[in-house]
Amino acid sequence: MTRTVYLNGDYLPETEAKVSIFDRAFLMADGVYEVTSVLGGKLIDFDGHAVRLERSLNELDMVNPISKEDLLEVHRELVRVNEIEDGLVYLQITRGAPGDRDFVFPDPETCTPTVVLFTQNKPGLAEAVKPMKVISIEDQRWGRRDIKTVQLLYPSLGKMMAKKAGADDAWMVQDGYVTEGTSNNAYFIKGNKIVTRALSNDILHGITRAAVLRFAREAQMEVEERNFTIEEAQGADEAFITSASSFVMPVVELDGQKIGSGEAGDRVARLREIYLDESLKAAI
Amino acid sequence: MTRTVYLNGDYLPETEAKVSIFDRAFLMADGVYEVTSVLGGKLIDFDGHAVRLERSLNELDMVNPISKEDLLEVHRELVRVNEIEDGLVYLQITRGAPGDRDFVFPDPETCTPTVVLFTQNKPGLAEAVKPMKVISIEDQRWGRRDIKTVQLLYPSLGKMMAKKAGADDAWMVQDGYVTEGTSNNAYFIKGNKIVTRALSNDILHGITRAAVLRFAREAQMEVEERNFTIEEAQGADEAFITSASSFVMPVVELDGQKIGSGEAGDRVARLREIYLDESLKAAI
Repeated sequence: MTRTVYLNGDYLPETEAKVSIFDRAFLMADGVYEVTSVLGGKLIDFDGHAVRLERSLNELDMVNPISKEDLLEVHRELVRVNEIEDGLVYLQITRGAPGDRDFVFPDPETCTPTVVLFTQNKPGLAEAVKPMKVISIEDQRWGRRDIKTVQLLYPSLGKMMAKKAGADDAWMVQDGYVTEGTSNNAYFIKGNKIVTRALSNDILHGITRAAVLRFAREAQMEVEERNFTIEEAQGADEAFITSASSFVMPVVELDGQKIGSGEAGDRVARLREIYLDESLKAAI
Repeated sequence: MTRTVYLNGDYLPETEAKVSIFDRAFLMADGVYEVTSVLGGKLIDFDGHAVRLERSLNELDMVNPISKEDLLEVHRELVRVNEIEDGLVYLQITRGAPGDRDFVFPDPETCTPTVVLFTQNKPGLAEAVKPMKVISIEDQRWGRRDIKTVQLLYPSLGKMMAKKAGADDAWMVQDGYVTEGTSNNAYFIKGNKIVTRALSNDILHGITRAAVLRFAREAQMEVEERNFTIEEAQGADEAFITSASSFVMPVVELDGQKIGSGEAGDRVARLREIYLDESLKAAI
């Protein structure tokens, strides 16, 4: 089945969805994005993603060309026409396609933003638990990782480094401390305590991160938001990542060293269960 | 006149040149570029740009889909059909448009790179000397500025910061030392000495930079490639930038402070003259 995608007001077959070579996302990575999960045909944490999208646009002085209500409608229509039971909706907004390449922002009066959405079908997404092996790499990204831009070349290179090393992903390290995974936030558990890097411009302010930490506190776990090293995480009982598309996923090996028993542990499994239960209840 | 541009083997009107929304440059800034100047209908430093393009592609494990000879032919054809006397040819190669978004590189057997070229007409480019006012900003770019990728969001933001401050450009500062301008290399002159940051992953290995430093040495000027601060540059006799499209351009003000007399100086003018003379002789 050919997917139907959304581009600037139109629903199109994926093969016909094209943007100008002068689109600023194509020429200079001048765009932001969000990924929202779909479970049972419903959207997980849509509001959180809409709020973060607004923030990313504001930080870059970009005009938001689409209301939250219209955005929700497009998400739902794409889920409907593509018959997505479990999967994702990807959304990207760029500063648009002025007639020519220029570092200076185009005039918003004459250049309207580009809005693209498409789905990915992932049957059984909520059941897909795959314990991960992770390597560490240097964090070479730009300084504003709190803005969810399409500057994803380094995360892509990081995934390839992991793949070549026989691992599933990479945790990035800056000045000796873990920032986050290539497309997820990073955590370890020691005793009753969850440790993860504090929010700053150094990491993405994960929507799933916020929910999981809230649920963890409600479940009487202690949460410490602070810097930590690869060595400290290697000595943990359990480790995991969170993201909009993998929810909560156990990490069982870090730079070739087993974490705890080397098997997915109970506390991470429980966090995943709580997150999925609560998110499904709130799905729209 | 509507420009004719090149896209994957075809010469097209600019309004018809479109790429898939799944192109990896659009979704994750997975592409590299070059800009070659045209003076008197001829290409300046084409070989240097071709060599650097090859290096950028290699560093990112990208396949080069087009030979140097064919690339030269496309450059010349675009210059011809668009009647460019003075201007630029922009070239971008991306990892292509696989059927779906994935951080993992697509299989080069099934996904071919995207190749885009277009011209910009800039009559009188060689005569356009505009002394520049520059501000300093923090260098927030990723760690591999030696690779000429399309991750240009921060340079674009930097140009906007400069514009808002009433300046023409920004020099970026990392750990107290100037790296380079937002789209150019940065220099100052004190006495008979030119100072500019040494090559590393921190800056672009400018094609114009290499030529200008060679000509300067041939003209018996001393060249020091080392770290320098904004304060040191403010105390210089003259300052300038180099890039493929501005050649050698005087900088007369830095963070509101005049450099030397605050007017474009003789030594920068002489370097520009030598560069243009020699480059025009070697143009193809």
